[in-house]
Amino acid sequence: MPGRRVIGVDVGGSKVLAGAVDAGLAVHHRTRLPVRGLDPQLLLQTVQQAVEEAIEHAGGEVIGVGFGIPSMIDRRTGVSRLAINLELGDVPFAALMSERLGLPCVVDNDGNLAALAEHRAGAAVGTDNAIALTIGTGIGGGLILNGRLYRGSIGTAAELGHIVIDADGPPCQGHCPGRGCLEALASGTALEREAVRIGAEHPDSGLGRAVAAGTDPLGPVVSELAWDGDVPALVVLELIGTRLGTACATLANIFNPEVIVIGGGVIAAGERLLAPARAEFARRALPPCADGVRLVPARFGIEAGMLGAAVLALSELDGAPTSA
Amino acid sequence: MPGRRVIGVDVGGSKVLAGAVDAGLAVHHRTRLPVRGLDPQLLLQTVQQAVEEAIEHAGGEVIGVGFGIPSMIDRRTGVSRLAINLELGDVPFAALMSERLGLPCVVDNDGNLAALAEHRAGAAVGTDNAIALTIGTGIGGGLILNGRLYRGSIGTAAELGHIVIDADGPPCQGHCPGRGCLEALASGTALEREAVRIGAEHPDSGLGRAVAAGTDPLGPVVSELAWDGDVPALVVLELIGTRLGTACATLANIFNPEVIVIGGGVIAAGERLLAPARAEFARRALPPCADGVRLVPARFGIEAGMLGAAVLALSELDGAPTSA
Repeated sequence: MPGRRVIGVDVGGSKVLAGAVDAGLAVHHRTRLPVRGLDPQLLLQTVQQAVEEAIEHAGGEVIGVGFGIPSMIDRRTGVSRLAINLELGDVPFAALMSERLGLPCVVDNDGNLAALAEHRAGAAVGTDNAIALTIGTGIGGGLILNGRLYRGSIGTAAELGHIVIDADGPPCQGHCPGRGCLEALASGTALEREAVRIGAEHPDSGLGRAVAAGTDPLGPVVSELAWDGDVPALVVLELIGTRLGTACATLANIFNPEVIVIGGGVIAAGERLLAPARAEFARRALPPCADGVRLVPARFGIEAGMLGAAVLALSELDGAPTSA
Repeated sequence: MPGRRVIGVDVGGSKVLAGAVDAGLAVHHRTRLPVRGLDPQLLLQTVQQAVEEAIEHAGGEVIGVGFGIPSMIDRRTGVSRLAINLELGDVPFAALMSERLGLPCVVDNDGNLAALAEHRAGAAVGTDNAIALTIGTGIGGGLILNGRLYRGSIGTAAELGHIVIDADGPPCQGHCPGRGCLEALASGTALEREAVRIGAEHPDSGLGRAVAAGTDPLGPVVSELAWDGDVPALVVLELIGTRLGTACATLANIFNPEVIVIGGGVIAAGERLLAPARAEFARRALPPCADGVRLVPARFGIEAGMLGAAVLALSELDGAPTSA
């Protein structure tokens, strides 16, 4: 049915993005609303408003809504657990939204949805085994194994930001009790911390001046400076990329995948980040596991979560479950 | 058919063990032959001899043979790659043995087979998502995901000994180009290295005396001394167990499994090893991923590979493939 639409919704820490999407993943309308600091009641109300606006401009019959939330979701109960940066802990999100909207609703973790979007239409098309890392303030993950999303026993698998790469490393962030996790060492937050440290050591460099000026957010500036050849900025990206490459070696040795897709805001640094990641990966991974593994940037940027939520809705509501 | 048998064969670095096994996994005969240092031709001949002896005493019709080899196997070609401690590199093992024996033969990595055995009849019975770690000279792994063995894109997945837990740690062993892998830090080899170091620091302890006397192998003595309360031996096991717990946290955050089964020679240390592993696991793993995850000893000891090879043969030759 060509006119059929789903609404894909990415509920982030600062904004909600709702898109009216057709079966070919073309986006017919987008609504974006701010949500930072809202209490749960107001947050749900704002999300509802964004979805209703998208439905209104969808240009076709809307059969359901998919939501991506930055949270671990217990699929036995539908309740989100440990939502990072968002007042969504212990909320049966999909059930509440379904009641408000009068439409079938499905929900998943934003890392899983990025993997779904890349596998359906992005950098992992045609693969059986693909890994997605989404590097922003934190690090999310998603696993496509044997062609389907792997969700684990209760639905909280693929927390790939919480792979330990340095057992004695710094404490992790958010709700993670660990230390030396990938997220503690290679997230956007870690990148900014290293940029402040390395910038301060080189006050006459572009990075040094940006740090002295209190630039915030600093991450995008590091990428820009690196593209201009600023050496301290390149050193920051090489450090973060190397850590990323270490985690990718662990992932390749575990999964023997075809591709590792790296997305999120930090991937704006492009090859300045990916080249050192690939070099470290080649130094560490077991040759048979690493053979032919591609480390590539995500196709979908800030719309990955929204599109993945649409893929989820299209699949699940059509009776083609995305996981086993 | 009650009289039907398969031969399960574990080809280790020092011996080959062939067992005649029925569909209920009862073992009707065992043949054990030494293979250390044999060249490939003589090795294949000795393996053949062990299988033929087991067939002769099987007490029923033998429908096929399953082999476990300490190697990564490229399932596209059937060729083993990077066999550790064994002259089996680049050999199409199953095809060669099938020709020699005139019976259908299947082959897999010993880590995968330990996981199969534990899932079918051991510590992981009834689970959908289970992880097996086999800790001996090296560390092998196997993954049961959604009820089936996960083998990866070319069949070399689940090299769980090569999860990096300390990016700046010591070089790994064998064919691994990495450093700070679990195998480098928590294998039987690592345990003996730490035992030598800690024993030398406490020359008047039981461990100190065992080290001074040049005890070899030292690993089993560490376990015995720990059971007798020797403090340096306990410190060694706590160190190794803690590292193991770190890797288990990574695995739980990735897989959200129901159980992590720990086998291999090192598990003789029992709770002296597992208790510190569980404690470190609880300190590090994300609560929703770790909820209800059991860290338990394997049911099958030195027969895990042989029994897993039998499970493989029973499943694959009956047209019930063990992986997707």
